Amino acid sequence: MNGTSEATALLHALFVIAIVAEAMTAALAAGKREMDWVGVYLLGCVTALGGGSMRDVLLGHYPLTWVAHPSYLLLTGGAALFTIAVARYMHKLRNIFLFLDAVGLVVFTVIGCNVAIGLDLPVIVVVASGMITGCMGGVLRDILCNNIPLLFRAELYATVSILTGLLYIGGLSLNLHHDMVMAFAMAVGLMLRLLALRYGWSMPKFIYSGNVH
Amino acid sequence: MNGTSEATALLHALFVIAIVAEAMTAALAAGKREMDWVGVYLLGCVTALGGGSMRDVLLGHYPLTWVAHPSYLLLTGGAALFTIAVARYMHKLRNIFLFLDAVGLVVFTVIGCNVAIGLDLPVIVVVASGMITGCMGGVLRDILCNNIPLLFRAELYATVSILTGLLYIGGLSLNLHHDMVMAFAMAVGLMLRLLALRYGWSMPKFIYSGNVH
Amino acid sequence: MNGTSEATALLHALFVIAIVAEAMTAALAAGKREMDWVGVYLLGCVTALGGGSMRDVLLGHYPLTWVAHPSYLLLTGGAALFTIAVARYMHKLRNIFLFLDAVGLVVFTVIGCNVAIGLDLPVIVVVASGMITGCMGGVLRDILCNNIPLLFRAELYATVSILTGLLYIGGLSLNLHHDMVMAFAMAVGLMLRLLALRYGWSMPKFIYSGNVH
Repeated sequence: MNGTSEATALLHALFVIAIVAEAMTAALAAGKREMDWVGVYLLGCVTALGGGSMRDVLLGHYPLTWVAHPSYLLLTGGAALFTIAVARYMHKLRNIFLFLDAVGLVVFTVIGCNVAIGLDLPVIVVVASGMITGCMGGVLRDILCNNIPLLFRAELYATVSILTGLLYIGGLSLNLHHDMVMAFAMAVGLMLRLLALRYGWSMPKFIYSGNVH
Repeated sequence: MNGTSEATALLHALFVIAIVAEAMTAALAAGKREMDWVGVYLLGCVTALGGGSMRDVLLGHYPLTWVAHPSYLLLTGGAALFTIAVARYMHKLRNIFLFLDAVGLVVFTVIGCNVAIGLDLPVIVVVASGMITGCMGGVLRDILCNNIPLLFRAELYATVSILTGLLYIGGLSLNLHHDMVMAFAMAVGLMLRLLALRYGWSMPKFIYSGNVH
Repeated sequence: MNGTSEATALLHALFVIAIVAEAMTAALAAGKREMDWVGVYLLGCVTALGGGSMRDVLLGHYPLTWVAHPSYLLLTGGAALFTIAVARYMHKLRNIFLFLDAVGLVVFTVIGCNVAIGLDLPVIVVVASGMITGCMGGVLRDILCNNIPLLFRAELYATVSILTGLLYIGGLSLNLHHDMVMAFAMAVGLMLRLLALRYGWSMPKFIYSGNVH
């Protein structure tokens, strides 16, 4: 929270890029479900901004990001609509979007940690706040598309967010330089996510075939 | 917000009629899923009051409507239970319920806009608040019934809400007479929704068959 | 709310036992969906703590339980992970977990009622707050597993919560001794739930095969 203004500006720029990328990926998910243009717009907004909104609601941190900065609703929704026009070319950009999604994951995580740090919350809640911010937009997208949330099954997605949060808050608690800590935590998280994508790493699954109740 | 008391009273009366109609339609959806009577009751409450609740939670606008007016929980839940007894006759009233659902859509939208206006929020958030209030009850109903939210696919549903909100806030920003603006916005929205139902108008769909990730 | 410290301590102890049991049952549901270990952890937390979180968000009652007591995130998540190791033995403990789930239902209900009573809310909202606390964790679990929420179909689940809440607030409003009222309401609710499980009691279902819209 006491980072340099350059670091803050960079984090903000990455945030804007990331919400655009998340909205565009969400638009493709909407297209798989044959939603109409309004649905595409809304799913883009919810996916890009839903994680931060859920964090703010759970922490009582008002106003929400899109209430304070309503232009994000136009940016993310517009990006989702734009995706309709360029969808046929997006498979060629698949790797770029996977990369941007990974960037978004660590950027959202750090921003979510910062919100909780700013509220003086305990370290476990800081990590949880980062993970909610980083991951819950995708969970909301999956629920609205009536899919089982991918988060609970995908390549180290939540794991990367938790690790990034732990490195970030751990480094800060050691009084290391904020910007260095932030860059290190994000770089490690980003690399782990990209390696997991490349080599298909995943957490072990729990497979249970008995009765639940 | 500075409407005459007659307009306020009419809006409130339409609100009560609309939440009853929404609860009754929700009861039929519960019956399709073979829910028990408690489920019917709860789905009625959630569908009728969930949009406003989601708006209030997102805007930090406490207390929620049903906390301040708990009788709405009895009214909507009771209407849902009553539906069980009259379900066999409801297909004859299908057009009336479609009409009341359209009335609810524009009434909820205007009420949602008013809440955001009362909080001095920017115009995009006012429109979003109207749309959340108008549409999200049905989204919650669809999620709880494990359906893909109809909102994202149905005849101009969210579009009508957004248009109604834009006309309402646009008219008010021109300093036109509140009651006239409200009546005009609601009438246009209602007519568009009814025409869309009658002629099967819908927004173009985005159909995408590639990989999302 | 003016119970003896012994009653408060007992209620708290039962709460801790119940959230552990709920997290363990949720872990089995995660295993049915072949979630990874992180998914198991998170679903345990959400199921055990989600009802109280939803109540607090709806009532504007901050901070949430797990924000004030983050160790609950470790306890419930840890219990969910532990379940992976012992899953093969859990069917032998099936009756114990059904019993603990029923205990959790009435304990969460009373705690939820107490929160609303502490906020001086009307009696209908007190009962609703108890039911949300008691039942909504399981609803969130079912949504995240992409199942139709069991609440709306299971043996008197929500009914037991509502009855427990009504007995509790009813007894308190008669100025009876708090601890007696609490014990009575919880005992009646627990017994009804166990009888419903034993004899397969359920609320009548509403089965509707016509069109909804």
